[in-house]
Amino acid sequence: MMSSGSARLEKDKWHPTSKFLQMSAKLGKLYVVGVGPGSHDHMTYRAKEVIEESGVIIGYDTYVGLVEDLIKGKEVYRYAMTQEVDRANQAIDFAESGKVVSLVSSGDPGIYGMVGLIYEILAEKGWDRENGIYVECVPGVSSLNSCAALVGSPLMTDFAVVSMSDLLVPWDIIVKRVEAAAMGDYVTVIYNPASKKRVHQLRDTKEIFLKYRKPETPVAIVKGAYRETQQVVITSLDKMLDHQDMLGMITTVIVGNSSTFNYKGMMINPRGYTSKYELVKQATKQ
Amino acid sequence: MMSSGSARLEKDKWHPTSKFLQMSAKLGKLYVVGVGPGSHDHMTYRAKEVIEESGVIIGYDTYVGLVEDLIKGKEVYRYAMTQEVDRANQAIDFAESGKVVSLVSSGDPGIYGMVGLIYEILAEKGWDRENGIYVECVPGVSSLNSCAALVGSPLMTDFAVVSMSDLLVPWDIIVKRVEAAAMGDYVTVIYNPASKKRVHQLRDTKEIFLKYRKPETPVAIVKGAYRETQQVVITSLDKMLDHQDMLGMITTVIVGNSSTFNYKGMMINPRGYTSKYELVKQATKQ
Repeated sequence: MMSSGSARLEKDKWHPTSKFLQMSAKLGKLYVVGVGPGSHDHMTYRAKEVIEESGVIIGYDTYVGLVEDLIKGKEVYRYAMTQEVDRANQAIDFAESGKVVSLVSSGDPGIYGMVGLIYEILAEKGWDRENGIYVECVPGVSSLNSCAALVGSPLMTDFAVVSMSDLLVPWDIIVKRVEAAAMGDYVTVIYNPASKKRVHQLRDTKEIFLKYRKPETPVAIVKGAYRETQQVVITSLDKMLDHQDMLGMITTVIVGNSSTFNYKGMMINPRGYTSKYELVKQATKQ
Repeated sequence: MMSSGSARLEKDKWHPTSKFLQMSAKLGKLYVVGVGPGSHDHMTYRAKEVIEESGVIIGYDTYVGLVEDLIKGKEVYRYAMTQEVDRANQAIDFAESGKVVSLVSSGDPGIYGMVGLIYEILAEKGWDRENGIYVECVPGVSSLNSCAALVGSPLMTDFAVVSMSDLLVPWDIIVKRVEAAAMGDYVTVIYNPASKKRVHQLRDTKEIFLKYRKPETPVAIVKGAYRETQQVVITSLDKMLDHQDMLGMITTVIVGNSSTFNYKGMMINPRGYTSKYELVKQATKQ
């Protein structure tokens, strides 16, 4: 444990080509892989490479479907959405038995994703990087990256990322976070804005933002980014609840800040707080 | 202009295979491309595809160097770091003259990146998506994605992203943001933590966080993620300034929140606020 000291790690220790990898060759490997927004276009080379290397593929059914063409002939385990702990444990068990496993998910497993649960379970087991199974989180294009790219340039300034899911976080903590984001003039990216059972959160969120921001503040709603069913709506803070049909588990909402503007249906954030003229004259790498 | 209404856009309009693309075939195309953290492994297929399609490659010298092997025989323009406006204008000019251009950068151009400046300049020119040059932002793995993957699982909970660069944003606004992030118990990802001319920001930031968080709160410092020179340090809030040699323009700092813990030199955030036992029993997809 190094909870009070500092640990400095060489690249060697964090990279698949490290000598450590060879040491643990008898144990298997666990890749926690993000395949991006759901079209192969936005998957990374590393994601494809580790899926190809793996003998076992585990994931929520829909995510496994995203890489169907890459997993022919492999041992594939498809799970329902509510079985996260089961699939995390199964992935670890297989790796401990010597197999090479990819636990796949959409987006980036490092952002509200499966890698957290994997490390929590491994920590309970006393796992360590030196002697245990090899674990690698393969980062991917998350909703915040893909939705920003689709709607314009909302993330040119500081931003907060908040999940509206109150399954594991009490609602009063989420409210406190939304309040802080609104007060701090953060552009705010909202994950899991609503589900069939959760409808009040976005209504409350809108009211909090309206205390600090103008009703015409641009808001983007993106459903199924880069999928066949993709829908993008650019609206405003006061009208953001008019698009209930857009809200669900594959929807991301971006609320602009005081400098965000709507240019012909795009959500744009200028870089910095200087006027545009000055910006263009003195612009330098941020 | 649709600054007060809502614009609903079909996938067609946002996708490179749209009929709009064929309409604007006489004009060129401008791809604003993120190539990820700097190793081809973490580049997306789309990024490589558009670079291959492009006749003209423009970028900051170091970024162009990251894709050297993909741009042989192309028209290549390499810029110094302070010439952002020049390279944005040149990229637009070439596309307007009918060329296919990739403006390349590391990470994700949608996060503190070049796509903002491109849209700002295009907006000044009255550009519109229907009749103007085709513009596509190709999202990539940004520092927040890559650094989180390298240090453990810090982004399992809500997080704020703040740039310490005060070139374009007054320092008092950055202070307000840091204060809001600290107060809201956000895990906080800090871009551009310091440069040769800027050293006070991280010192001030540390003091603000210490008002709200314990001195032993885990802090990760990542320099040159996924590059040959990569260095990772897991330290704590009270010791974060002991690693001055790590700080610079390719460094990202992640400050944990009240639930972040250090497990054997990794920075872990549990999902949610329930105890681990309950979490494992009732865990469901967030």
